[in-house]
Amino acid sequence: MTLTLLSINCARLNQSITDLANIGRLANGGVCRLAFTDADLLARQTVQAWMEAAGMTTRIDAAGNVIGRYAGKIADAPALATGSHIDTVPVGGKFDGCLGVLAGIEVVRTLQENKIRLDHPIEVIVFSDEERSVIGSKAMSGEVHEDPDYYVRLDGTPIQDCLAKVGGDWERIETAQRTDIAAFVELHVEQGGVLEHAQVPIGVVSGVVGQYRFAVNIKGRPNHAGTTPMHLRKDALVAAAQIVLLVNQIASETPGDQVATVGYLTVSPNATNTVPGEVDLRIDLRDLSQSHLEMLVEQLKSGIAAIADSTLTEIEMRQTLHILPTLAAPKIMSAIEEICGDLKLPNIQLPSRAGHDAQEVGRMTDMGMIFVPSRAGISHSEEEYTSPEECAQGTNVLLQTFLKLDRLYR
Amino acid sequence: MTLTLLSINCARLNQSITDLANIGRLANGGVCRLAFTDADLLARQTVQAWMEAAGMTTRIDAAGNVIGRYAGKIADAPALATGSHIDTVPVGGKFDGCLGVLAGIEVVRTLQENKIRLDHPIEVIVFSDEERSVIGSKAMSGEVHEDPDYYVRLDGTPIQDCLAKVGGDWERIETAQRTDIAAFVELHVEQGGVLEHAQVPIGVVSGVVGQYRFAVNIKGRPNHAGTTPMHLRKDALVAAAQIVLLVNQIASETPGDQVATVGYLTVSPNATNTVPGEVDLRIDLRDLSQSHLEMLVEQLKSGIAAIADSTLTEIEMRQTLHILPTLAAPKIMSAIEEICGDLKLPNIQLPSRAGHDAQEVGRMTDMGMIFVPSRAGISHSEEEYTSPEECAQGTNVLLQTFLKLDRLYR
Repeated sequence: MTLTLLSINCARLNQSITDLANIGRLANGGVCRLAFTDADLLARQTVQAWMEAAGMTTRIDAAGNVIGRYAGKIADAPALATGSHIDTVPVGGKFDGCLGVLAGIEVVRTLQENKIRLDHPIEVIVFSDEERSVIGSKAMSGEVHEDPDYYVRLDGTPIQDCLAKVGGDWERIETAQRTDIAAFVELHVEQGGVLEHAQVPIGVVSGVVGQYRFAVNIKGRPNHAGTTPMHLRKDALVAAAQIVLLVNQIASETPGDQVATVGYLTVSPNATNTVPGEVDLRIDLRDLSQSHLEMLVEQLKSGIAAIADSTLTEIEMRQTLHILPTLAAPKIMSAIEEICGDLKLPNIQLPSRAGHDAQEVGRMTDMGMIFVPSRAGISHSEEEYTSPEECAQGTNVLLQTFLKLDRLYR
Repeated sequence: MTLTLLSINCARLNQSITDLANIGRLANGGVCRLAFTDADLLARQTVQAWMEAAGMTTRIDAAGNVIGRYAGKIADAPALATGSHIDTVPVGGKFDGCLGVLAGIEVVRTLQENKIRLDHPIEVIVFSDEERSVIGSKAMSGEVHEDPDYYVRLDGTPIQDCLAKVGGDWERIETAQRTDIAAFVELHVEQGGVLEHAQVPIGVVSGVVGQYRFAVNIKGRPNHAGTTPMHLRKDALVAAAQIVLLVNQIASETPGDQVATVGYLTVSPNATNTVPGEVDLRIDLRDLSQSHLEMLVEQLKSGIAAIADSTLTEIEMRQTLHILPTLAAPKIMSAIEEICGDLKLPNIQLPSRAGHDAQEVGRMTDMGMIFVPSRAGISHSEEEYTSPEECAQGTNVLLQTFLKLDRLYR
């Protein structure tokens, strides 16, 4: 059986990864290819040309998504789709997003050179602006915000101009919504340390976690740190410290896979000689189950109310973000696991705790994700690294998954 | 008995307080009279003229201290001294320091108009630069740092120029050291809320606390707040929160009157999306007993070492300040308490947890301090306030204390 399995070209795949990383390459080895910049545009054009060379027809939808399509044997069959993004954070790596796009192209190259055509068409999609607005994949599931001001860039550029630059059209963005995709499978680097820690090459993603963010403001009373006795203080930082530990405790000790973080905290007036009068902090909370998230939020709220009482401080907690979780389709997860068995690749299930295009696409069709390891769990950094072999292993799983889904989706 | 007690002139005292506050007055009602500025110089000259009008001879020592002397009946008797400072922080109030100087002058005015002369000479001293270097009172006890660079101002002005401007002389600063002061008593606003909270007009200060400061650096590992499972984190802010609560707990729960504060804390990279990689914080710890302070510092050190272990972080703790406590002389404290009894003024003993000139002078002679209430405990602010009656009550206690000490010190 193993001998007859179709396999992608590891060297070709990794050459594409290297070539794409040269567009927007930084002196430190990282990549800066912010969405809708000239570097992003050049990368899109490069990838589009590679799609066409692999036998795909290409188009750009109103959300600026670049869509390559490798025709199937059955005329009206819905597509089996894959893809990811090629925009980066200000100092990004070579693999985040790019691997998913280039693996999709490599899968089609392999089918083309072996003269294989599936029943379903295959689509490889470059989604617009995953790193900030996720507008490309949101448009596909019809979840774009109505107000264009919501999408204004940090430098003030309107989204209309951004989309026009890459071939999209804000006025027609609703036309990017799809109903003709049977399944979407995204290959991505893990961006965490779970696979490396478990020494396993493939992660079968059980879903993309939902997320809450809260901005918390704590008002105490600023006072002289020498002359104010302990019992007359209203110390905003003491209250904040209790919240930091509460958040950590809820995430660490509640049964489940949730994570919660206080990553941002500022003290005012922030002087050695002054009892802190005010603290602002932000809480980030993620889990795969919306009901579990709601339970944790309730625990957090009642814990924080008790801290306000005991520290004599005033605490306001304001929700600033809520993203619903998206579960992977069980039949896609099973397909990936069976293929790993065929390929003798150890694998584990894990949730994705970072957002991905698959989270948005998964709101309108069956979704699955394949993870490959990230060295030291590092991402969004020039140190991001996944070995050529690991990239190839993930891409072979993607190829075989398409072959299997072609039979499963009828 | 009460009817025959000598009393100061409340209106005259408070007029002086108002007049002095007009030098360097800010639009918001506060006072800006930084040491060695033109405003400080004008205030010194004004106060020196008031001393002379009250029958004192005046001189300026090498440390720039303005010294008014009201001669005593016994030729070679050591002085009974009082005084404080008239420099302010950038936004100071009318009372911090000024009350002590002007009360001293008012005491002498009262003696002069009643044609009373004590056996001992009385000195009223304006100490140089209490708010930053405490160089004036340090010079009197021979504790000035040898290196003039230690005293360079924030704007780069050398201390030599500062002292020359106000009539001092860095080259001769050791001549400011005194051995001919029998006792020093300083009247000051409390700058805390203890007297107001206890509804008591007079505080009998048991000493000026010693102080330690530490700079603490915590190194964890910055990671993605979504993709890093709780058990794989090294969260510097979780460690910092435990330190904040340890500091608060040691100060609040150890028997004693110590205070301890984390007033300064910064997080890096300080992003909602990132597990904190590094935190810097500062600890301030004060108590009247050096051995008690040393015990608390040991508790702190062992607690912080345990936190480093349990949070897998690296923590460095560096001592940045150490000031020894100064205890008040028991016979001066008793004298003040007896006088409060005579004047029917409720009083309590309390430590001073802010630094004062008396702390430095007390290293070379018997020291005592009288506190009057600060409204809402506020100081170093335009809102600093002590009522005219409270100022007068404290000044009457100072007057009677001098009359009593004149008999006690032979």
